[in-house]
Amino acid sequence: MSIASIYEPVQEGLRMVDDKLISFARVDFPWLAEPLAYVLESSGKRVRPGITLLAGKFFQYDLDTLVPMATSIELFHNATLVHDDAVDNAMLRRGKTAVNSLWGDGVAVLLGDYLFSLAADLVCSIGNFRVMSMFAKTLTEISGGQLRETFSAYGWNQNRESYYEQIYSKTASLFAAATGTGAVLSDAPEEAVAALTSYGKNLGMAFQVIDDILDFIGNEGEMGKPVGSDLLQGTLTLPVILLMEQRPQDNIQQSLAEKPGDQEEVARVIEMVRNSSILEECYQIAGSFSSQACRDLEALPQNTSRGSLLDLADYVVERRQ
Amino acid sequence: MSIASIYEPVQEGLRMVDDKLISFARVDFPWLAEPLAYVLESSGKRVRPGITLLAGKFFQYDLDTLVPMATSIELFHNATLVHDDAVDNAMLRRGKTAVNSLWGDGVAVLLGDYLFSLAADLVCSIGNFRVMSMFAKTLTEISGGQLRETFSAYGWNQNRESYYEQIYSKTASLFAAATGTGAVLSDAPEEAVAALTSYGKNLGMAFQVIDDILDFIGNEGEMGKPVGSDLLQGTLTLPVILLMEQRPQDNIQQSLAEKPGDQEEVARVIEMVRNSSILEECYQIAGSFSSQACRDLEALPQNTSRGSLLDLADYVVERRQ
Repeated sequence: MSIASIYEPVQEGLRMVDDKLISFARVDFPWLAEPLAYVLESSGKRVRPGITLLAGKFFQYDLDTLVPMATSIELFHNATLVHDDAVDNAMLRRGKTAVNSLWGDGVAVLLGDYLFSLAADLVCSIGNFRVMSMFAKTLTEISGGQLRETFSAYGWNQNRESYYEQIYSKTASLFAAATGTGAVLSDAPEEAVAALTSYGKNLGMAFQVIDDILDFIGNEGEMGKPVGSDLLQGTLTLPVILLMEQRPQDNIQQSLAEKPGDQEEVARVIEMVRNSSILEECYQIAGSFSSQACRDLEALPQNTSRGSLLDLADYVVERRQ
Repeated sequence: MSIASIYEPVQEGLRMVDDKLISFARVDFPWLAEPLAYVLESSGKRVRPGITLLAGKFFQYDLDTLVPMATSIELFHNATLVHDDAVDNAMLRRGKTAVNSLWGDGVAVLLGDYLFSLAADLVCSIGNFRVMSMFAKTLTEISGGQLRETFSAYGWNQNRESYYEQIYSKTASLFAAATGTGAVLSDAPEEAVAALTSYGKNLGMAFQVIDDILDFIGNEGEMGKPVGSDLLQGTLTLPVILLMEQRPQDNIQQSLAEKPGDQEEVARVIEMVRNSSILEECYQIAGSFSSQACRDLEALPQNTSRGSLLDLADYVVERRQ
């Protein structure tokens, strides 16, 4: 199952989103056009605009509002990535040099702001207060969550619950906004808006758990960023949290906190995770979020879009990068 | 003439703005409450919310929409300051340690995003598409302008015209949005919206020219930031541009560019400016923007608010910090 076949029902809309994204880079100022093109033309999977369009296809599929919305969600997503990389001093993004690493942190901050502003302006142009408010609240959720993560790096109180809160803020909230806004703009009844929002949330949770697994098993070439990068930043993700649960006597959190950013210590923890059954358990957890996402769709009309969303729930769990 | 007496007609509204700003810092999470309170409780002059309220007092003075708008403008302004200080590696802001300097660049980036999101959500709550779009476009203008400034630091093509464009993006665009949104929300007729927007723009231009003068004559204690800080960043402001015009043979731009951030070179240029009539000329330019701002008000109804806006146009030119 390829991502292209999943997107088949919304192919035309996604092409329009891509055109619109690229059009933002066609500005007269080379100092602006170059970094914009660098970010917007890069080959992300476009999952978020994809689910906005798919979620918008159960009732009134109106590309005049759904295309700007999906484009805005992708601009917004790219803005958060550019800022995150500056915050984390990341070197790579999607296998390419990160903006902060290429042009400096200052440009990354301002370019992220610029992308937020384009996203906000595009949402305004749709003329729907509800999606506009969903958009603003998602930024509050994401930046608030990232602030919490920054302040709790190497912290002592990480557990499954705080992890789930964290990945909701960081990833699932934007997935939920992507499907929720698609549903609202297609004039879906309230129950369908709720179901599609919940689908987006659960899909996002599964997506992030898999991302956190891949940080332990992938290699830099496939992932486009170094293995163990979260741990090096002091961010404890699900595999380490389960390891701590299983081996409380090892004081893993303490030894990580004592040597922040220590590559050997991180490599040691990665090995402990790989030599246990923890990653299988993590896959099961991702699978249960994905199953919940599928159940969320049960009350919706049967159509090709529903088939695609079901396939996507499998795809995000099975993906290798 | 004190700023308090200028704000007299909108005293009640400004108090409500202050209460609302402080309420945002009352969140349950100490890691968020502390930096929020640090930024929002600091004693800025509240010029931008002040002019939103004053501009909103010519027709329907409706505090239910004007207070959230003015608060949003101030949140937005603080977001840009927090990001700017991170971009410029500034140590001080309003005489206090800057957020980036106290908590690190990462927190500054995320806190700025968080403040933008609060500002956006508040504008959404007003339920007026036009002010929402003005808000988004102002962020495009500001971040785009700052990107241009970053890419053209120590650049060769600075002249009066590029300087005026730059300070419009950086400062005057938000002043124009502050008065423009106030006018729109008070149901002002289109000519009055245009007049008040133009007033805001010209006031902002005067304000920034004075800021740039003060960077040459102030002292660190009064200004809350080091003297010559723009020059140290490679940003050429009006006084240096006029100096270059007067003394083309000195290759001032070249010698600054050859030693980026060199304190002695900057001190030498500051002395050259101080020993010339350039600052007087800059004051005349600020004065002409201020006079234009006053002329913009001619067609508006005579009331206490108009008196205050006229006084404010004098105040920004006469201020010493």
